[in-house]
Amino acid sequence: KGGRFHAVTAHHLSYNFFTYETTKSVVVKSWTIGIINRVVQLLIITYFIGWVFLTEKAYQIRDTAIESSVMTKVKGFGIYNNKVMDVADYVTPTQGASVFCIITKLITTENQVQGYCPESEKKYICTDDRNCTKYINKPGSYGIATGRCVPFNATIKMCEIKGWCPAEIDTIKTGNFLPNITQDYIHKCNFDMVNNTYCPIFRVGDVVRYAQQNFTNLADKGGVIGIKIGWMCDLDKSDDHCNPSYSFTRLDAMSQKNAVSPGYNFRFAKYFKMENGTDYRTLVKAYAIRFDVLVNGNVSV
Amino acid sequence: KGGRFHAVTAHHLSYNFFTYETTKSVVVKSWTIGIINRVVQLLIITYFIGWVFLTEKAYQIRDTAIESSVMTKVKGFGIYNNKVMDVADYVTPTQGASVFCIITKLITTENQVQGYCPESEKKYICTDDRNCTKYINKPGSYGIATGRCVPFNATIKMCEIKGWCPAEIDTIKTGNFLPNITQDYIHKCNFDMVNNTYCPIFRVGDVVRYAQQNFTNLADKGGVIGIKIGWMCDLDKSDDHCNPSYSFTRLDAMSQKNAVSPGYNFRFAKYFKMENGTDYRTLVKAYAIRFDVLVNGNVSV
Amino acid sequence: KGGRFHAVTAHHLSYNFFTYETTKSVVVKSWTIGIINRVVQLLIITYFIGWVFLTEKAYQIRDTAIESSVMTKVKGFGIYNNKVMDVADYVTPTQGASVFCIITKLITTENQVQGYCPESEKKYICTDDRNCTKYINKPGSYGIATGRCVPFNATIKMCEIKGWCPAEIDTIKTGNFLPNITQDYIHKCNFDMVNNTYCPIFRVGDVVRYAQQNFTNLADKGGVIGIKIGWMCDLDKSDDHCNPSYSFTRLDAMSQKNAVSPGYNFRFAKYFKMENGTDYRTLVKAYAIRFDVLVNGNVSV
Repeated sequence: KGGRFHAVTAHHLSYNFFTYETTKSVVVKSWTIGIINRVVQLLIITYFIGWVFLTEKAYQIRDTAIESSVMTKVKGFGIYNNKVMDVADYVTPTQGASVFCIITKLITTENQVQGYCPESEKKYICTDDRNCTKYINKPGSYGIATGRCVPFNATIKMCEIKGWCPAEIDTIKTGNFLPNITQDYIHKCNFDMVNNTYCPIFRVGDVVRYAQQNFTNLADKGGVIGIKIGWMCDLDKSDDHCNPSYSFTRLDAMSQKNAVSPGYNFRFAKYFKMENGTDYRTLVKAYAIRFDVLVNGNVSV
Repeated sequence: KGGRFHAVTAHHLSYNFFTYETTKSVVVKSWTIGIINRVVQLLIITYFIGWVFLTEKAYQIRDTAIESSVMTKVKGFGIYNNKVMDVADYVTPTQGASVFCIITKLITTENQVQGYCPESEKKYICTDDRNCTKYINKPGSYGIATGRCVPFNATIKMCEIKGWCPAEIDTIKTGNFLPNITQDYIHKCNFDMVNNTYCPIFRVGDVVRYAQQNFTNLADKGGVIGIKIGWMCDLDKSDDHCNPSYSFTRLDAMSQKNAVSPGYNFRFAKYFKMENGTDYRTLVKAYAIRFDVLVNGNVSV
Repeated sequence: KGGRFHAVTAHHLSYNFFTYETTKSVVVKSWTIGIINRVVQLLIITYFIGWVFLTEKAYQIRDTAIESSVMTKVKGFGIYNNKVMDVADYVTPTQGASVFCIITKLITTENQVQGYCPESEKKYICTDDRNCTKYINKPGSYGIATGRCVPFNATIKMCEIKGWCPAEIDTIKTGNFLPNITQDYIHKCNFDMVNNTYCPIFRVGDVVRYAQQNFTNLADKGGVIGIKIGWMCDLDKSDDHCNPSYSFTRLDAMSQKNAVSPGYNFRFAKYFKMENGTDYRTLVKAYAIRFDVLVNGNVSV
């Protein structure tokens, strides 16, 4: 009888399990309430179709992980000290990646060799060794101080350093690079904000202007300009609807404000050897406009 | 009495506030409807557990902000003009970052000095100065035109330029780099798509093949190959389940199509000094295969 | 009559359409159940306001697509072989981008010319040509083997290679760079983890210490240090609440573990010309600390 009892219990359980519970409802047959009800429903449906689906495209998966690779090429000539400078001279690094610098002002110090020589900055002016002893073995502006006071020129004496000599004189006032970069060879197109918004060929002057900068100032102090490429792709549409939009901003503006180091410049050296094997170098302090190509994308699938 | 009235109202309010409102419901005791009801509920539960939790892992927070740093090292030798080229000669930049170029073809123009010389491109062929006046002070291919017509060789005359002379002759046809890059020193492993999918040592030829490119063509024109490293990490599992997957594509394919500048090449110069202090340089036009290591990750916590 | 019939049907349909259906509900007037009901509602509301809105800020749109551009500048001097090294000597690349290397140890091989010379690695020691034939036309450590066995010094013979000669001897034990980088010129501030958490001027020694590394070891073997800048911006608050937080880690730790190539070093060459036009070079194997500035941001709008 135990078996039968179990069967009955199971039957009751499953009978109660396989039921359908729903709420009782009232239908209010009133024109006024009915119309309000449907209008509210219509508004909700409109919101979903119009805003969530069509405008925000919430059904799409947005792919924000961008894989981007940038190829750049600079063309044109500049004139510096009556010498013609080409791309190999004024662009660095030369590989044509997403970050490159166009050198606009140079302070060169030729024929530096390792040795002893006077500093070149005002604060190291001295009248005798006692003014320099406090600097001994400390780094100065251009080398490590020896503590001696030596003649800088006919009238001024400066503390002596050990290092690459003569020390750089960092006070050239005149910007001296003619941005003689013209078209001619740019036969295909030329980016502008109105008619050629997809052309990937930019004139330096245009880019600087679009970033609302003054070229002369920028070339003199150096600076960093961002060329932002925003790819807006909607893969619901055809391939042709995947277009770049370009925008331009100055990126070192903040560092200008807090003034840790205004402008943009860097030093590099070209190394040479004398016949007897002694190394010498040309130190170059380059003021440059650095262009950072920043790629940014929103691909909706 | 005001006080008492308030107390009563408050009592009534709170009495109505602390009620529980629920919907009336009907239980339909029908086997057919009951089974359908439970089956539908089961489907919904299965969808949540099977798809949302196990497949999509919607409960995980996906971290798409990737911090990646890439170290690369190139090994091997090439032969160019009967000279053996090592890594310091054919890889640039040398620092082993995520983007590096392997130079595969060179057009070198030795002993350039600042001066006046004829252009080297066909379009500047001239018979007399009148053909060249239109170019005066405009940038030519290799310098700034002077407007004079001068002999290029015994038979041809070309417009003269001011700049680094002699001008580069950009018409070497023969690719001349032997990709003599063999293993031996690669003692540890060697990436392949089937057996060694995690080995981070790649042979150049393999990478080019995986990107479905023809090495000879690529070496001749230059190009950009992307090595994509996708890190798929599931932190629900142990540390060992965080593995890279490599894929390879040619990245300059689009620029090949729209043909602004097909292939990949860049120019750089090595600077020298004569004993009397005159600068001269060797201009190098390098055709290279650029490798961009792109890191991409999906870490689920 | 057809027309009339339609009108009536339409009237009936629209009459049924514009109704309002709602559920019947029961109000349970019980203090116990009422209080439980309201407490549960309160908990749900508290969760939404406290957690979803205030803590997680789920109403904000998080912008994880970061556009970042980094400017760096290195200052200070080092001493190597009694020569003073400045920034142009020991920093590479020089442009001040987000990745830069500070060279800490040098192995220089001066006056290399193309030619034939013995290998310099132990495994190529030989007693006669038969030991070297297996290497013919294969790349050795520093060039392509010729298959001959030639004297390396008075006592040892080595297999001969064709390439840049003499071959580099890669066994200097002593690290020889004094990190003589002191402040003085850093007049403005100096980052530290406690008092100056926003100062963007870092001392190399501090960065290495914050990354929990031993400077001597790191300088000897080379390594990669990541300087992570996390921008946490809450645009609900004012502009001033957008502050960076810095953190430091060693990035080549993993490659140390799997030991494909421990440490960080790279080779580059400086090219010279003899008076007769022969190229020669100084090969430099540089051990360096590479700094990768990684920018990371969470901007909530």
